[in-house]
Amino acid sequence: MPRDTDHLAPEPVTVLGLGAMGTALADAFLAAGHPTTVWNRSAARADALAARGAVRAATPAEAVGANRLIVACVLDYDALQSVLAGTEALLAGRTLVNLTSGSPEQARDFAARAAGHGLAYLDGAIMITPPGIGGPHATLLYSGAPEALARHRATLAALGEPVDLGPDAGVAGLYDAALLGLMWSALSGWLQGAALVGADGVRAADFTPVATRWLAGAVAGFIDRYAAQVDAGRYPGDDASLDVHVAAMEHLLHAARARGVDTALPELLARQAGEAVAAGHGADSYARLIEVVKK
Amino acid sequence: MPRDTDHLAPEPVTVLGLGAMGTALADAFLAAGHPTTVWNRSAARADALAARGAVRAATPAEAVGANRLIVACVLDYDALQSVLAGTEALLAGRTLVNLTSGSPEQARDFAARAAGHGLAYLDGAIMITPPGIGGPHATLLYSGAPEALARHRATLAALGEPVDLGPDAGVAGLYDAALLGLMWSALSGWLQGAALVGADGVRAADFTPVATRWLAGAVAGFIDRYAAQVDAGRYPGDDASLDVHVAAMEHLLHAARARGVDTALPELLARQAGEAVAAGHGADSYARLIEVVKK
Repeated sequence: MPRDTDHLAPEPVTVLGLGAMGTALADAFLAAGHPTTVWNRSAARADALAARGAVRAATPAEAVGANRLIVACVLDYDALQSVLAGTEALLAGRTLVNLTSGSPEQARDFAARAAGHGLAYLDGAIMITPPGIGGPHATLLYSGAPEALARHRATLAALGEPVDLGPDAGVAGLYDAALLGLMWSALSGWLQGAALVGADGVRAADFTPVATRWLAGAVAGFIDRYAAQVDAGRYPGDDASLDVHVAAMEHLLHAARARGVDTALPELLARQAGEAVAAGHGADSYARLIEVVKK
Repeated sequence: MPRDTDHLAPEPVTVLGLGAMGTALADAFLAAGHPTTVWNRSAARADALAARGAVRAATPAEAVGANRLIVACVLDYDALQSVLAGTEALLAGRTLVNLTSGSPEQARDFAARAAGHGLAYLDGAIMITPPGIGGPHATLLYSGAPEALARHRATLAALGEPVDLGPDAGVAGLYDAALLGLMWSALSGWLQGAALVGADGVRAADFTPVATRWLAGAVAGFIDRYAAQVDAGRYPGDDASLDVHVAAMEHLLHAARARGVDTALPELLARQAGEAVAAGHGADSYARLIEVVKK
């Protein structure tokens, strides 16, 4: 059986943009043994990477022409456009993995234009801060040209676990926004809890291991169970009903007010749950509240 | 060396209150081989448990007198008071583990009165729904008489992992409120995300495994790191600053509005973050927002 020897050596890769994240990406490729060509508008940002073995490209065209796989991480889509201006003739047959933040609409526009140049386009979202790149919690989401992800998956895995979100280039950016929203909600919920127990002298360092165990265990378990309810549009509350939640929310609000802790976040959640109860859904599960969010 | 043979056989236990949760508690004790005495105001609720091997007590006094360890799970503190009325002379030397929901203040009052009767008092909070009792995600929080938890820990472990929160009986109830607040925030953040990606045709069943991996991995990691910042009262934003969060929050708000998804929750979080930035804390981490919550 013939073997594709290209897959035996680490694939060479180009990184465009060497901010904190671009530098972390290039370092992860180097650490995994990939010959790595780098370019940045301010050339001095490439010095340290060159000292660690990266090949420095003098121009974007030189960087794009160097490798079949190009990873871009610049400020925004306008910056990406201006970096690629003048390289159009070189793009056919290559893959651009765009890890620049932007909206789903920008990603879809870019994918359509890339197709016109014969460029395979993958839009990506990095769900970790630069120090976490290549580490155990690093997840990178990709959507767009499916064959491109299949072809370069082993190389991209040097950055973190690649998650394939399918052919719509806009989906990775949409997940990014949705997951960040979940993060901010969870962080604020944790801060609210830390302030509450802190008012009675409990250290955040003592509360937090219990809180993260709860979040990663029971709460993630509830979310798993409720996903099927959301897709079905039916929300049986046999485990815990909105009536029970609303009563418990009053306990939280009372405890927070008694301690002078801000109640804006729990009040918002209690108001949304209370509206669902008032609309006759008190026996339903918490997942019923997606009907409030969807409007 | 003398051995305490009492510890070789499963310890007998009494359960007061046989609602859905009390029944699950009694069943978990029975499953772990503990001789279990049960009592409920409506005696019929004990029928099925008696058929599974529980000993039925005719009165609260009979139930209290039967065993050294008594676990109560009734509607509220008023109900607990009325169940125990008339049993006062029997209480000395026993341990009451109260898994009834209530405020930290109620727990502290009860602990003080229990001490007057020579009763060791542990207040507990059950961080799982009845079907999860005894399962892998079951966490039960206890605070109050420390020697009582040490003595009965092996028995209580039949219900789920016991977490010792120290001698202040009010702390378990306070953690309960704080952890439920974290749960509601995370559930609503997940519903918000599911609605957002759902607007572009993504099923909750597809979004959710990515969301729970993110929550249990990266987000729990941020929380761990920020706990030390909260305790120190210093919030260096070297990983991700409030300036960066506020910019990304605008992306989320834009994407939500474009899809007709409710923005009350992300708007509240963006407003709190924006206030901290306006107050000059844009270079700080998200953990700075605890100063908003603490007021």
